[in-house]
Amino acid sequence: MLNCIYLLAITAEAMTGALAAGRRKFDMFGVLVIAFVTALGGGTVRDIFLGHFPVAWTQHPAYLYLVLCAGLLTMLIAPYLRHLQTIFLVLDAMGLMAFTLIGCNVALTMEYRVPVVMMAGLATGIVGGILRDVLCNRVPIVFRHEMYASVSLLTAGLFLLLRSAGVDTDLNTAMSFMAGLSLRLTAIWRGWRLPVFALAQRSNAGGKRGALHD
Amino acid sequence: MLNCIYLLAITAEAMTGALAAGRRKFDMFGVLVIAFVTALGGGTVRDIFLGHFPVAWTQHPAYLYLVLCAGLLTMLIAPYLRHLQTIFLVLDAMGLMAFTLIGCNVALTMEYRVPVVMMAGLATGIVGGILRDVLCNRVPIVFRHEMYASVSLLTAGLFLLLRSAGVDTDLNTAMSFMAGLSLRLTAIWRGWRLPVFALAQRSNAGGKRGALHD
Amino acid sequence: MLNCIYLLAITAEAMTGALAAGRRKFDMFGVLVIAFVTALGGGTVRDIFLGHFPVAWTQHPAYLYLVLCAGLLTMLIAPYLRHLQTIFLVLDAMGLMAFTLIGCNVALTMEYRVPVVMMAGLATGIVGGILRDVLCNRVPIVFRHEMYASVSLLTAGLFLLLRSAGVDTDLNTAMSFMAGLSLRLTAIWRGWRLPVFALAQRSNAGGKRGALHD
Repeated sequence: MLNCIYLLAITAEAMTGALAAGRRKFDMFGVLVIAFVTALGGGTVRDIFLGHFPVAWTQHPAYLYLVLCAGLLTMLIAPYLRHLQTIFLVLDAMGLMAFTLIGCNVALTMEYRVPVVMMAGLATGIVGGILRDVLCNRVPIVFRHEMYASVSLLTAGLFLLLRSAGVDTDLNTAMSFMAGLSLRLTAIWRGWRLPVFALAQRSNAGGKRGALHD
Repeated sequence: MLNCIYLLAITAEAMTGALAAGRRKFDMFGVLVIAFVTALGGGTVRDIFLGHFPVAWTQHPAYLYLVLCAGLLTMLIAPYLRHLQTIFLVLDAMGLMAFTLIGCNVALTMEYRVPVVMMAGLATGIVGGILRDVLCNRVPIVFRHEMYASVSLLTAGLFLLLRSAGVDTDLNTAMSFMAGLSLRLTAIWRGWRLPVFALAQRSNAGGKRGALHD
Repeated sequence: MLNCIYLLAITAEAMTGALAAGRRKFDMFGVLVIAFVTALGGGTVRDIFLGHFPVAWTQHPAYLYLVLCAGLLTMLIAPYLRHLQTIFLVLDAMGLMAFTLIGCNVALTMEYRVPVVMMAGLATGIVGGILRDVLCNRVPIVFRHEMYASVSLLTAGLFLLLRSAGVDTDLNTAMSFMAGLSLRLTAIWRGWRLPVFALAQRSNAGGKRGALHD
């Protein structure tokens, strides 16, 4: 079931990537590259920092084709997507949960410790969107909007907690998935955000000495 | 022969990196870092996602020195480069082809499947330029200008097609190289571009709920 | 001793990351992600391109907790940090040296050649800050301010030189550290910069053909 949701998820992610690329007026090819990076970039980065080779998508060309089709489709139906935004948000939320749980599982298979497992889940969930935003030259949206990355981490935490309590893996996956999904959808619906840490931009006293890091 | 072109290619790529850094008023050291990333970043990313360790340039310090010399040279002769733009474009196009074919060969040696081999060629060809643009805080040019990334992919596809048809590797390399180079130079000359996917920028209704991904 | 300085260093780096995120008005979670990337991103990238798995921080969850605490602390005490800028700069300079020397040691353990060892030291020293700036959508500061990356490289060079001269490792580490630190602090104090390579921005003759790379 998680696998099936995963396929929906990479489709949805590829479409958000293609839409972002369209806002930057990329050519067709650029759109497909961004779709690919958004959908499969998170898993790739996870596999790389866990040292989990070969990287997942290289063993499943079907993912690649799915992502390319989703990118092409997005260019065709973009004018109609406006009316589908709710569906999109739900698909994306489902994708975030599926990505997170799959990422945790990969790290667990490799016997990493708990904090690394959580980071693997989180990275799988959010890195694709971060790469998309970096390539489109904008500040990553996951750092500023409603609870998103934090839901991914909470889901990973719940999954590990239930696991250490001895809950059966399938049941655990289903429960963590539903809990995370509910939280994310509630956060969108009620506009829940984490507290923002806002400092003033630096004044443009550019030549200031030792202004090293800020 | 491909190796010789490869050396020309990393030199040309390093120079484009140095020029981009100069437009951002980087210091000498920053210029050399960008030259390095532009010339060798594509191969590095390819090696990493293929799990091909050690990474190529770490075994060939000569590449590193070549790139640094190219960066230094660029700073010296920048005022004259304006008159050499045609040579530059040809070198860069040759580089794109050489990078692509070398990338395909690395993936073939590791017995990856066809779509992964094509992605390896493409990544080797375009990722250096993408990293350069990200580090210079601008939208990657390969996503918007004349056919570039697409030529890389077509070249990789032709190479694999001829290979599966049993054409001798040297002949195949030469043919794919010339075909790709011709296409790229024609695209520059005639201004061929792929169709652009242009969506309106979002209105700045910033607080909109669920504006998750765009 | 280097290890102790390393802990100070990742704390200081995490704080500079959190401050940069605050200037972009990230939410709490985004601040912690940037703190993590700034403090541990350099070592991660080094481990990945050296093929040094498992990546260092995955084996030391304590680093992760330290970084998160530093990020949280920064949000609490940000208004007071203005008065601590001098301490910050010193900590950051110490961190740069510690990162560089640790990076060199990792590459030496793996028997890489001299130029790769220097690149490993440099990457460990500067990549965290570069990733921070890319994620905050700004031009990396290390490429433009007072001597920073270059001090990292000089320190790595001195360390390797003394090593090949047969100096005892502990003494060598201490000497390279002090020499690098002195140079960096002098550079801040006197405002030493490397020569800047400044080209004019391109005129916005956007449609120009073959304007491939710049």
